[in-house]
Amino acid sequence: MFKKLCAEFLGTAWLVLGGCGSAVLAAGFPELGIGFVGVSLAFGLTVLTAAYALGPISGGHFNPAVSLGLWAGGRFPASGLPGYIVAQVLGGITGAAVLFVVASGQAEFSTAGGFASNGYAEHSPGGYTLMAALVAEFVLTFMFLIVILGVTHQRAPVGFAGLAIGMALVLIHLISIPVTNTSVNPARSTGPALFVGGWAIQQLWLFWLAPIAGAIAAGAANRALFEHLDDKPPVTGRPAP
Amino acid sequence: MFKKLCAEFLGTAWLVLGGCGSAVLAAGFPELGIGFVGVSLAFGLTVLTAAYALGPISGGHFNPAVSLGLWAGGRFPASGLPGYIVAQVLGGITGAAVLFVVASGQAEFSTAGGFASNGYAEHSPGGYTLMAALVAEFVLTFMFLIVILGVTHQRAPVGFAGLAIGMALVLIHLISIPVTNTSVNPARSTGPALFVGGWAIQQLWLFWLAPIAGAIAAGAANRALFEHLDDKPPVTGRPAP
Amino acid sequence: MFKKLCAEFLGTAWLVLGGCGSAVLAAGFPELGIGFVGVSLAFGLTVLTAAYALGPISGGHFNPAVSLGLWAGGRFPASGLPGYIVAQVLGGITGAAVLFVVASGQAEFSTAGGFASNGYAEHSPGGYTLMAALVAEFVLTFMFLIVILGVTHQRAPVGFAGLAIGMALVLIHLISIPVTNTSVNPARSTGPALFVGGWAIQQLWLFWLAPIAGAIAAGAANRALFEHLDDKPPVTGRPAP
Amino acid sequence: MFKKLCAEFLGTAWLVLGGCGSAVLAAGFPELGIGFVGVSLAFGLTVLTAAYALGPISGGHFNPAVSLGLWAGGRFPASGLPGYIVAQVLGGITGAAVLFVVASGQAEFSTAGGFASNGYAEHSPGGYTLMAALVAEFVLTFMFLIVILGVTHQRAPVGFAGLAIGMALVLIHLISIPVTNTSVNPARSTGPALFVGGWAIQQLWLFWLAPIAGAIAAGAANRALFEHLDDKPPVTGRPAP
Repeated sequence: MFKKLCAEFLGTAWLVLGGCGSAVLAAGFPELGIGFVGVSLAFGLTVLTAAYALGPISGGHFNPAVSLGLWAGGRFPASGLPGYIVAQVLGGITGAAVLFVVASGQAEFSTAGGFASNGYAEHSPGGYTLMAALVAEFVLTFMFLIVILGVTHQRAPVGFAGLAIGMALVLIHLISIPVTNTSVNPARSTGPALFVGGWAIQQLWLFWLAPIAGAIAAGAANRALFEHLDDKPPVTGRPAP
Repeated sequence: MFKKLCAEFLGTAWLVLGGCGSAVLAAGFPELGIGFVGVSLAFGLTVLTAAYALGPISGGHFNPAVSLGLWAGGRFPASGLPGYIVAQVLGGITGAAVLFVVASGQAEFSTAGGFASNGYAEHSPGGYTLMAALVAEFVLTFMFLIVILGVTHQRAPVGFAGLAIGMALVLIHLISIPVTNTSVNPARSTGPALFVGGWAIQQLWLFWLAPIAGAIAAGAANRALFEHLDDKPPVTGRPAP
Repeated sequence: MFKKLCAEFLGTAWLVLGGCGSAVLAAGFPELGIGFVGVSLAFGLTVLTAAYALGPISGGHFNPAVSLGLWAGGRFPASGLPGYIVAQVLGGITGAAVLFVVASGQAEFSTAGGFASNGYAEHSPGGYTLMAALVAEFVLTFMFLIVILGVTHQRAPVGFAGLAIGMALVLIHLISIPVTNTSVNPARSTGPALFVGGWAIQQLWLFWLAPIAGAIAAGAANRALFEHLDDKPPVTGRPAP
Repeated sequence: MFKKLCAEFLGTAWLVLGGCGSAVLAAGFPELGIGFVGVSLAFGLTVLTAAYALGPISGGHFNPAVSLGLWAGGRFPASGLPGYIVAQVLGGITGAAVLFVVASGQAEFSTAGGFASNGYAEHSPGGYTLMAALVAEFVLTFMFLIVILGVTHQRAPVGFAGLAIGMALVLIHLISIPVTNTSVNPARSTGPALFVGGWAIQQLWLFWLAPIAGAIAAGAANRALFEHLDDKPPVTGRPAP
C-alpha cells in the first residue's frame, strides 16, 4: 500500500507541476507563448504519461474525484479512499511548491497573478458566474469519469486507456480554462490555492464539491450502462480474467 | 437497445458540448485563445474519447451520417437507423443546451455571435459560397467514412480505430472551419442551430444533405475496395471472427 | 492491383487536399488561423488516417519517394513502382483540383498566393537558398524513410506504424515549412504546381530529385542497420511470419 | 554493438536537428510561426519516431542522462555507457551541424540569436536564475526517467512506451522552455553550444550536471517503487519473458 500511495503522490505532483507549471511559466510568454492550447496539452500529458508509468502500481488516479468515481462505479474499495486522497492532496501541494521555487526565480513573478488557481465570478479568467462554474465542473467531471470508467472496462482494447484518459483531460481544458481555469480535480485546485491564499482558498469549496458530485454521478451512470457486458467475454485479444 | 441509444445520446452530447464549447468559450479568448487549432483538436478528441469509452456499447457513431455510411457499407442494419439518428439529434441538442447554460454565465454572451453554428455564403466564417460549402462537406464526409470504414475493418490493427477516427475529425476541422465552421455531422449542426434560429435553421438543409450523400458514397466505395479482403484471415493477432 | 492503385490514388489525394488545404484555407485566417503548427498537424494526420484506413490494401505509401525508398530497402518490388507512382501523381493532382474548387469559392482567392506550392530562393517562405532547400529535403526525406522502414520492420510493435509515420510527417513540417513549404513527396509538390504554373513548375525538379535521393539512401542505410535482426523472432505478441 | 551506436548517433542527431531545428527555423516566423507549442511537439516527436524506428536496435536512449538513469535503474549495463554517450554526443553535434548548414541559407541568420542553446540567468529565455534552472532541469529529468522506467517495465502495456516517452518530452518542453530553453539531455545541449561558443559553453556544465543527477535519482526511486512487481506475471497479453 505504501508504494501505491507514493505513486499517487508522485503522479499528482507531476500533474500540478506540469499543468500549472506550463500555465504559470509558459502560457503568456511574449509572442511565442503556448496559450491555452499548450496548457491543455500539458495537463493531459501529465496524466497520459503518469498513467502509463505509474498506473501498474496504483491504478493511476491522481485525483480525489477519480478515486471517488471509481468507488461509485464499483471499481475501487472504500477502504482505499482515505489514503489515496491524502496522498493526492499532499502531491498537489508538493507540485505547487516545486513550481513556486522555479517560478520565483524570475524577478517579476508574484502569486498575485493567480498561480494557476481555479476560480469563479471575478476570479474566473473570462468572468463566468458561480452557476456557470458549478455546471461546467460538474458536467466535465461527469464526462471525465464516463471516459475513465469506459476505457478501463474489460471490454475496451488493452493499452489505450492512458491515451484516451489523457486526451479527455486535454479536451476538458480546451473547453473550460476560460470558465474556471479548469479543475475537475480537487487536489489540483488545492495545491496552488495554498500559495495564493485569500480568495483562492475561499473559492476552493466549489472545486471539491462539483467534481466529486459529477464523478459519483458518473459512477452510477456507468454501472447502468455497462452491467450487461460484465459477464460477456472481451472482444479483443485480451485473455479473459 | 436502450443502452445503445443512451450511449449514442451521451457521445453526441459530448461532441457538441466539447467541440462547439471550445469554439464558443475559448477560441477567441484575448491573447491566450485556442483558435481553430484548439477547436479542431477538441472536436476530434470528443470522438476519440467517446469511441474508446462508449464504442463497446453502441459502436460509437455519434453522427447520423456515420450511421448511414456504415449502413451503406454493409456494417450496420437499416433497422437500427431510426433509433440511432433520433438519439444523436437529441444528444446534439442537449449538448448545445448545456453549453448555452455555461456560456450565458458571461455577461457579453449572445447567440448573435453564431454559437458555433454551421453556415455558408454570408454565414461562412471566411465567406465561402454555397457551392464551396457543398463540395467541402461532401468530400470531407466521404473521406471521414473512408477512414472509419477502413480502420474498423477486420484487417486493421486492433484498438487503433478510435485514434484514427478522432484524428480524422481533427484534420477535417483543420481544413474546413473557415469554409462552413465544419459540420460533416447533421446532429452537430442541428444542436446549435436551434438556439440561434433564423439563418442557422434556414441553412441547416445543406448540413444534412451533403454529409449524408458523402457518407453513402463512401460506403459504396469501401465495399468495392475491401470486398476481396473480407474472406482472408487478418494479418494481426486478432482472432478470426 | 487495380484496388491497390485506387488506394494510393485516394490516399495521395487526401494528403494534398488535407495538407495543402489546411495551408490555403486556414493557416492565415485572421486572429484564429492555424499557422504552421496546424498545417504540420494536418499533413501528418492525412498520412496517419490513410495509413490505418488504406494501408491494409496498398501498404499506404502515398508518395513516390516512399515507394522508391521501400524498394531500395528491399520491401517493395520494382515491378510495382510505375503503377504506384502514376497513381500517386494523379492523386496529388486530383487533391489539388478539389482544393481549387473549394478555395475559389472565396472572392479574394488567387493562385498567385502560391497555393501551397513548394519553392526555394525567392519562393521559399523564409527566403532560404537552393542549397538549403536541397539539404533540407534530402535529409528530412532520409529520416522519414528511416522511420518508415524501422517502424514497419517485423521487430517493431504491431499497429504503431501509422502513428509513428504520421507523427514523423508532422515533425518534418514543423521543421521545414519556412525553408521549402516542405515537400519530401514529389506527388504532393506536383499537384499544386500545375495550378500555379510558372516558377512552381520550374522549381519542381528539386522536389523530385532531393526526396527520391534521400529515400534511396535511407533504404540502403536501413538494410545495413537491420539485416542482423531479420532472422530473429519478434519481441512482441505478434505471430512469427 | 556498432549498429547500436549507429542507431544512437542517428537518433540523437534527429533529436537535435528536429527539436532545435524547429526552434531556429520556424518558432518565430512572422504571424504563422509555431511558437513554443510547436517546438515542444517537435522535440517530443523526434523521440517518439526514433523510439519506434530505432528502439528495436539500441533501446532508443538518444540522451546520456537516459542511459545513466537506465543504468541506475538496473536496466542497462555499465559497460555500454561509454560507447552510448560518445555516440549520442557525436550525434548531437552532427544534428546541430546539419541545422547550421540549412539555417545559414537565410541571409539574416546568425548564431548570435542563440541557435537554440540552453542557458540560465541572462541567457534564460525568461530570465530565470541559476537556481531555478538547476531545480527545473533536475526535477524534469527525474520525472522523465520515472516515465521512461515505468513505461518500459514488463508490466506496462506493450508498444505504448514510445508514445508515452515522446509525450513526456513534449510536456517537459511545454513547461520549461522559458526557464532554460529545456535540456534534460546533455547531448542536445552540447551540439548547439559548440556552434555558439562563449556563454553557451560556459553554461554547459549545468546541462550535464542537473539532468544526470535527476536521472540517477529516478533510477533509484524506480527500483524502490517497482521491485515488488518484478516477479509477478504481466497483466496484459504479452508473453512472460
